[in-house]
Amino acid sequence: MKSSKLCYAYAAHGPKSNLRPFRFRRRAVGPNDVLIEILYCGICHSDIHTARNEWQNTAYPVVPGHEIVGRVRETGARVMRFRPGQIVGVGCFVDSCRKCDHCRAGLEQYCDAGVSWTYNGTLQDRKTGTFGGYSDHIVVDQNYVLRISHKSNLAAVAPLLCAGITTYGPLRHYGVKRADKVAVAGLGGLGHMGVKIAASLGAEVTVISTSAEKERDARRMGAKKFLLSSRPENFGKFENYFHFILDTVSAPHDLDRLLGLLRRDGTLCVVGAPGVPQKIDQFNLIMKRRKFGGSLIGGIRETQEMLDYTARRGIVSDIELIPIQKVNEAYARTVRGDVKYRFVIDLQSLGPAKA
Amino acid sequence: MKSSKLCYAYAAHGPKSNLRPFRFRRRAVGPNDVLIEILYCGICHSDIHTARNEWQNTAYPVVPGHEIVGRVRETGARVMRFRPGQIVGVGCFVDSCRKCDHCRAGLEQYCDAGVSWTYNGTLQDRKTGTFGGYSDHIVVDQNYVLRISHKSNLAAVAPLLCAGITTYGPLRHYGVKRADKVAVAGLGGLGHMGVKIAASLGAEVTVISTSAEKERDARRMGAKKFLLSSRPENFGKFENYFHFILDTVSAPHDLDRLLGLLRRDGTLCVVGAPGVPQKIDQFNLIMKRRKFGGSLIGGIRETQEMLDYTARRGIVSDIELIPIQKVNEAYARTVRGDVKYRFVIDLQSLGPAKA
Repeated sequence: MKSSKLCYAYAAHGPKSNLRPFRFRRRAVGPNDVLIEILYCGICHSDIHTARNEWQNTAYPVVPGHEIVGRVRETGARVMRFRPGQIVGVGCFVDSCRKCDHCRAGLEQYCDAGVSWTYNGTLQDRKTGTFGGYSDHIVVDQNYVLRISHKSNLAAVAPLLCAGITTYGPLRHYGVKRADKVAVAGLGGLGHMGVKIAASLGAEVTVISTSAEKERDARRMGAKKFLLSSRPENFGKFENYFHFILDTVSAPHDLDRLLGLLRRDGTLCVVGAPGVPQKIDQFNLIMKRRKFGGSLIGGIRETQEMLDYTARRGIVSDIELIPIQKVNEAYARTVRGDVKYRFVIDLQSLGPAKA
Repeated sequence: MKSSKLCYAYAAHGPKSNLRPFRFRRRAVGPNDVLIEILYCGICHSDIHTARNEWQNTAYPVVPGHEIVGRVRETGARVMRFRPGQIVGVGCFVDSCRKCDHCRAGLEQYCDAGVSWTYNGTLQDRKTGTFGGYSDHIVVDQNYVLRISHKSNLAAVAPLLCAGITTYGPLRHYGVKRADKVAVAGLGGLGHMGVKIAASLGAEVTVISTSAEKERDARRMGAKKFLLSSRPENFGKFENYFHFILDTVSAPHDLDRLLGLLRRDGTLCVVGAPGVPQKIDQFNLIMKRRKFGGSLIGGIRETQEMLDYTARRGIVSDIELIPIQKVNEAYARTVRGDVKYRFVIDLQSLGPAKA
């Protein structure tokens, strides 16, 4: 029988404490498991919400991280799809019930029984806690491991596992296609992936942002237009213009103003949410038969599709690579929006932590 | 040259005054016009809002009424589609620009230039005021006149012109089909048509209502289940149940509770709106990829399709037929929900008003 695996990591131990080195044990590699040496892990805003217990559901200590790229080190006896040495990814969840309608439809993220989140969750036994990617290794069932075929810049691939699929999912689900007028509200970790993916689909992309200084980046990423939303008078010329708006802004903001930019039958899709209810005027939906929708990451099948698509198209995230010792500083900078556009942790830097 | 036509009607002359007899002139029958003797006209809640200036846009005197069934009396030289004696209908609008994308798509209700509402609007000249169906005649361009093939009970056909198409439109647009789980929130003028139409499409219909005494009617109209919404504990067993909810309640109410009843990818569609913004928790959209939409009546092509469909299926409204002298009493009863399920005015009763 194989023995459990000692892992080195960084963990938060309470809502107000910095993340610091932490050791724990992963389960032994079972017949369906893949042992992955983690190379890179992106810092998602969810990591920060969880580390700080801002969603009031954190079980400490918590090892965040669900934008994981690594190398297969070992595989269980029944693992046929992966071999040691291969580059793979792990996203926001590591298991699900596999039986409900959603799981069978390849939309595990909506699993009726509840997915096993990659961190601050439990396995399907509802008992064993999960620990995320700010660590040197992870053990994951092969059905929840993704193939990565990008040939270089693997650090910049990591954010695709959450920010990439979160934006790719709704763009595909709502059928965004060539020449569609698409707006992306907010140019952060999610938004910048939304711009790149929407532009790659042939859409005419407009970035809606409160920061004038982001226009240059927006255009570099593929946006053709820029709506500086801090000036309300700029909204007029985009009224009834867009087929689809991908709203990546999770702070409270004026949804009616965004809805007014949609043409008939257009959709505003949110992928983030403030903790407080938002107001909307239903007339904005009725008068142009507009839709207001939401979308949650993506299933395994769709995440694989996204990874293959972005590899073919050479799409990765814009990142700032940091050693794990800078994670607390990176959190502070992420909260104040000072990141272009995603921090990624180089897990090689954990070396000293093991000492 | 033909002369204008003297019409007898009931009009509101101010927000607080009762409707009373009124005489005015309709335009002469032009080459593309149909002169219709009005037989029946439904009382829509919009009539009341307008008569009382509750939308702050009423031009007095106003002759309400946009659920019109009548008989063709005269046709212009270029009218080929209608002949005297034929039974026809007129709905919520009597013209539109005919050039914009929406008009060309047969969705005139979303006309960029703005439709000519049947009353309290203007013709496409943006000057000539329009007067509705609480009158003995109306003159309408042939392209905005509907054929009616119902063989009997014409009074009960009148509400189809607004309540019917308002509910048929979204049920069809969102593709409601056999065996779908559909809820209709609110069993009033709109809701009771929604139930009949959804049931006729083969959906399993649940009525959501605050009035326990409406269950019997709901089941008679085709509902299979009833959710008494005044008891919050009743919502539990319908969580994640419905493919589609048609929300006909225009008073403010808890939308999050309705959204929670939708299964993944389900849609909540509103066809009425309170004058105040409504709150929703975006997580309710995100966690099941639900959609929140709105819909506005229907275009001419779709209204004709609805009329043909309901004629084939023998679907009409449940009505209380009144002489026009009872219109003010009917308004009061409609406001307090004391109508099963639509008042329809018998315009023959106008006779004495002409004296």
